[in-house]
Amino acid sequence: MSFDRLIDNIREKQNPTVAGLDPKLDYIPDYIKASAYEKYGKTFEGAAEALFEFNKGLIDALCDIVPAVKPQAAYYEMYGWQGVRALERTIAYAKEKGMFVITDGKRNDIGTTMQAYAAAHIGTTDIEGTEADAFGADALTVNGYLGTDGVKPLLDICKNSDKGIFILVKTSNPSSGELQDRKLDDGKTVYRTMGDMCEAWGEEAPGKLGYSSVGAVVGATYTEQLGELRAALPHTFFLVPGYGAQGGGAADVAPAFDEKGRGAVINSSRGIMCAWKKEGCAPEEYAAAARREAIRMRDEIVSYIGEIK
Amino acid sequence: MSFDRLIDNIREKQNPTVAGLDPKLDYIPDYIKASAYEKYGKTFEGAAEALFEFNKGLIDALCDIVPAVKPQAAYYEMYGWQGVRALERTIAYAKEKGMFVITDGKRNDIGTTMQAYAAAHIGTTDIEGTEADAFGADALTVNGYLGTDGVKPLLDICKNSDKGIFILVKTSNPSSGELQDRKLDDGKTVYRTMGDMCEAWGEEAPGKLGYSSVGAVVGATYTEQLGELRAALPHTFFLVPGYGAQGGGAADVAPAFDEKGRGAVINSSRGIMCAWKKEGCAPEEYAAAARREAIRMRDEIVSYIGEIK
Repeated sequence: MSFDRLIDNIREKQNPTVAGLDPKLDYIPDYIKASAYEKYGKTFEGAAEALFEFNKGLIDALCDIVPAVKPQAAYYEMYGWQGVRALERTIAYAKEKGMFVITDGKRNDIGTTMQAYAAAHIGTTDIEGTEADAFGADALTVNGYLGTDGVKPLLDICKNSDKGIFILVKTSNPSSGELQDRKLDDGKTVYRTMGDMCEAWGEEAPGKLGYSSVGAVVGATYTEQLGELRAALPHTFFLVPGYGAQGGGAADVAPAFDEKGRGAVINSSRGIMCAWKKEGCAPEEYAAAARREAIRMRDEIVSYIGEIK
Repeated sequence: MSFDRLIDNIREKQNPTVAGLDPKLDYIPDYIKASAYEKYGKTFEGAAEALFEFNKGLIDALCDIVPAVKPQAAYYEMYGWQGVRALERTIAYAKEKGMFVITDGKRNDIGTTMQAYAAAHIGTTDIEGTEADAFGADALTVNGYLGTDGVKPLLDICKNSDKGIFILVKTSNPSSGELQDRKLDDGKTVYRTMGDMCEAWGEEAPGKLGYSSVGAVVGATYTEQLGELRAALPHTFFLVPGYGAQGGGAADVAPAFDEKGRGAVINSSRGIMCAWKKEGCAPEEYAAAARREAIRMRDEIVSYIGEIK
């Protein structure tokens, strides 16, 4: 149970990062799109094929050095069920290559509906007595605004498996403070209150390496809060978006880690996916450029935190 | 723009309710499942076909008396992309029958990612210069924990169309108060603060009938808060879940309406979908039973609020 498997992947590769797979068509080299459109037309099916082929190249180039991928559901849903099928194929391919897969869906609901999301994304679905994976990711991002009723169905799966969830605590965007930074009448911020809830929920699903199955999303763009939350939530593993394109650097994310170099995984999406554009290399080299950027990012972060024990 | 079209549908049918389409396999008569499995096996494709056929029967039976449907994305996602295709087919069919379609997805994210969700669910997706509907609903439920960055991409669509959004304010579940009822340091609750944000966001997309394109989800199970919010948020249209199976009755939801009988649409999911089980009628009559329950619910609510002007 818990994020032990993710942490083991991170230690083995000495790389506390995750590659975001948010494949906008703009990011994808023309030759991949042309080939997909030739087969399926300029349709959702064609676009979905291009997304998958692009992801496949990235996964092949990254899987021996990057422990995890984080596909963002929105970029698949925008191409209808065909796009959603590309999400499913991407998850399956990344798992086949040994990567830990975090579906970034920020799902939230209650009761039987949340059970359905839990089954869809980190559990299994029953059809007349046979259980099958729908999307079958290893972890899911979750919005906790609805309280325990929205988390319990996920916890029920986490307690009996090595699956995990990341709950939005302090998000990386400029307006995150409109609600999250507001102080409650006990003097605590909303984000800190949500963080405390994560720590409490996590007690039901502890891990062997110090972190429970209930993680938190905390943005790289709020480095002070990262440090505050790391100290306050000793059993809550952090997924940290906002590195790179959103402005966070290695120094900003360093406070997310504990003294063993554990406790967080740092996401980069555009930085890795669009490395070929930034480098100005040939489009055919997009995956090699992604690998170069992933190595640069790894080395930069590890230079701040040292060996991951 | 705004919810004018929904309100017009409600006035025309004198029925302020929406039928939730949360088709669990358990709710679906055996003869529909048997036929779907015969065609596609006991697979996600078979299950998805059963969901769609069940929904189609409900839509046919309800479309002349119920103004809107609310498919809940989770129950489709649990059957993988095949289930998601059933969601797409359901939305298209309900629109063809003149119903206003609210996708209950509680989506949330920021920036370009939220743009992708907005395109997916209430906007259109561009593929090499051609715009197409991915899911093409009329409205989407949204979680506002991330603040304005998560709402603006939706507002951009609402401002130039007749689409709308419903933001979670006070949800119907028992644990909704863990965060939502907490008081901020200015003495206002979190839910009221979120409600005020809805009212402010809505100023950018006002409607001709008094309500903006930014609605709020407020549970039937919290009748006092319904009244408080109705008074405080005069331009915010309410989507009210929790009627029936979750315990809310017509008296509980009456405070959601304004003096013209406008201002809210009340959802029933299980009550309508499972009416055939509750009645104990023949499974082949499930749609007729759903219609009988929809009429009963309409009459009960209208007896409290009077004519919808």
